[in-house]
Amino acid sequence: MQHDYGSRDDRIIGATRWIREQLVAVVHGDDDYQCVLVQGSGTFAVEATIGTLVPRGGKVLVLVNGEYGRRMATICNYQRRAFTTLETTESVPADPGALDEALTADPDVTHVAVVYCETTTGLLNPLRDVAAVTEAHHRSLIVDAMSAFGVLPLSLAELRVQAVVGSANKCLEGPPGFAFSIIRTDALRASDGNAPSLSLDLYAQWVGFESDGQWRFTPPTHVLLGFEHALREFHAEGGVEGRGSRYRRNCEVLIEGMEQLGLETFIEPHLQAPIIVTFRTPDDPAFDFVRLYQLLRSSGYVIYPGKLTEVDTFRIGCIGRLSEDDMRGVVAATDRALRSMGVTERPVPTP
Amino acid sequence: MQHDYGSRDDRIIGATRWIREQLVAVVHGDDDYQCVLVQGSGTFAVEATIGTLVPRGGKVLVLVNGEYGRRMATICNYQRRAFTTLETTESVPADPGALDEALTADPDVTHVAVVYCETTTGLLNPLRDVAAVTEAHHRSLIVDAMSAFGVLPLSLAELRVQAVVGSANKCLEGPPGFAFSIIRTDALRASDGNAPSLSLDLYAQWVGFESDGQWRFTPPTHVLLGFEHALREFHAEGGVEGRGSRYRRNCEVLIEGMEQLGLETFIEPHLQAPIIVTFRTPDDPAFDFVRLYQLLRSSGYVIYPGKLTEVDTFRIGCIGRLSEDDMRGVVAATDRALRSMGVTERPVPTP
Repeated sequence: MQHDYGSRDDRIIGATRWIREQLVAVVHGDDDYQCVLVQGSGTFAVEATIGTLVPRGGKVLVLVNGEYGRRMATICNYQRRAFTTLETTESVPADPGALDEALTADPDVTHVAVVYCETTTGLLNPLRDVAAVTEAHHRSLIVDAMSAFGVLPLSLAELRVQAVVGSANKCLEGPPGFAFSIIRTDALRASDGNAPSLSLDLYAQWVGFESDGQWRFTPPTHVLLGFEHALREFHAEGGVEGRGSRYRRNCEVLIEGMEQLGLETFIEPHLQAPIIVTFRTPDDPAFDFVRLYQLLRSSGYVIYPGKLTEVDTFRIGCIGRLSEDDMRGVVAATDRALRSMGVTERPVPTP
Repeated sequence: MQHDYGSRDDRIIGATRWIREQLVAVVHGDDDYQCVLVQGSGTFAVEATIGTLVPRGGKVLVLVNGEYGRRMATICNYQRRAFTTLETTESVPADPGALDEALTADPDVTHVAVVYCETTTGLLNPLRDVAAVTEAHHRSLIVDAMSAFGVLPLSLAELRVQAVVGSANKCLEGPPGFAFSIIRTDALRASDGNAPSLSLDLYAQWVGFESDGQWRFTPPTHVLLGFEHALREFHAEGGVEGRGSRYRRNCEVLIEGMEQLGLETFIEPHLQAPIIVTFRTPDDPAFDFVRLYQLLRSSGYVIYPGKLTEVDTFRIGCIGRLSEDDMRGVVAATDRALRSMGVTERPVPTP
């Protein structure tokens, strides 16, 4: 990341090509899929994917059970694409039966959009069933796999998916600065003219990559080379299987440790993705999230506030270059913090 | 750039605030302007600015004399904003008299868009006159100052401009990964609901920065801190005046040297910005641009192909961390390359 290569340098062109090929391979996309990189955060790639693949006369059904599902609906609204939502509460996965009914009832829907792991809570959505229902209705599926890509199982050889969106800086552990969409070649080829944005037109971006190997507009070259290295580390760790095992073990150690402190998870264990864990806050007036955050921060652990409106929660991530020892460390630091706040009322009450 | 700060870390929030303040100060925007950073390349910021500031019922008149002017027209077309263009050929600056007539003739035009330095050629557009005409007609002016910001004179205290767009990685010499728009506060405040893109909605991005100091979506944190450092170097060099002097001297040394080799510039000297210089290719069958490129590349100098259709040209940049010695070096390497190709036919013929 310390060398200032030009955008058109062979080094950048080579890294771009290699990264695009590798990302398709991670999800077994083979020759049926194209990886299109795009500058910006994961949301840029989600918006670019919806804008490029959904034609102006299309309609999107968004499965919503958290902030990232809602965000896809917001994107449709900005882009003036027709859309509808099918919502479940934040602790309940998307319902394939309800999706089946909704698609039967609304033949105008061309695309279904779903978040694989809803980072709002750490909830897993039933991707396999959602894909099967969507395929049975001959509609197209767009998957926001931002916090899942590279860790949760996802094979495009097995599931009928039109596009999967991921980011450089989640489970693939690269620096932030670009994101990507892995799109069926036939769908991408048919998408010329759809996009309502020049910068976020993945069809034009793909044509650019295929013609001279270059990005249409200046890419974050330093970030790109950082990501190239991150991808090598990913392979060295054993890819999806190796990294997934580490994250799952991190998640188990975290939850076991926190339960021993009397803290409960918000999501049921079998619906919990090993990405981020939401804990209910103790029902003790001495508990203060800001104080907990600061005490953990000073011990070297950065946690997240909850994103739920109904229940008071906080969140701890399991992803990134973290080990079981790190998870034991944050549990021990949480124990010290709760003691120093004088929080004695544990476990939390069941609502 | 080697530390992986979280997006919400105080270090990132502080750097974001400081960068935003400093960029407004570079163009003397004072309290009347707001700097909104956006992920992606310069084009992302140009598109975000047009999309955010031009209402759905607005109309843009784009002054075109090169690729970057044309790109703004393309953006309007993507965003389905009404637009018209006023074109001059690539060696001729925008014509304020023609703009005056066009604005008189078309009262529907709400915004004029102009590129300050057209990087296609290195041509300077007459920003002061364009701003005066636009103001006289009570229309709003959007300036793409991508390759000019930080080097060419630009005072928002003197010119009536609604927005100026720049990038981290041109004259400010930061790494690529984000860009920015400096927008009149009153115009930004009135722009809620205009943007056709969530990711590129500068109103919402601004509200985010102002509410908690954070980016709405993950920023390129490493690039941001690299840019913070680049901005300190910019100040240490004497800001616009200091850096501008170095670039102008680089440009002079380059042109003088190339003229001694018998090579002619495409742009007249008084219209030449000290950013990038377009040279006509020698009219000698032995000349081969690809060969020239490769020979210079192997000597450590990366040049650019020409972007003109009418005339064969190539381009050499004067910006970045370059000195007069570097410019003398590229001249000497060009001399060696031309000799090795056997190019004897110089000077080039006047067309």
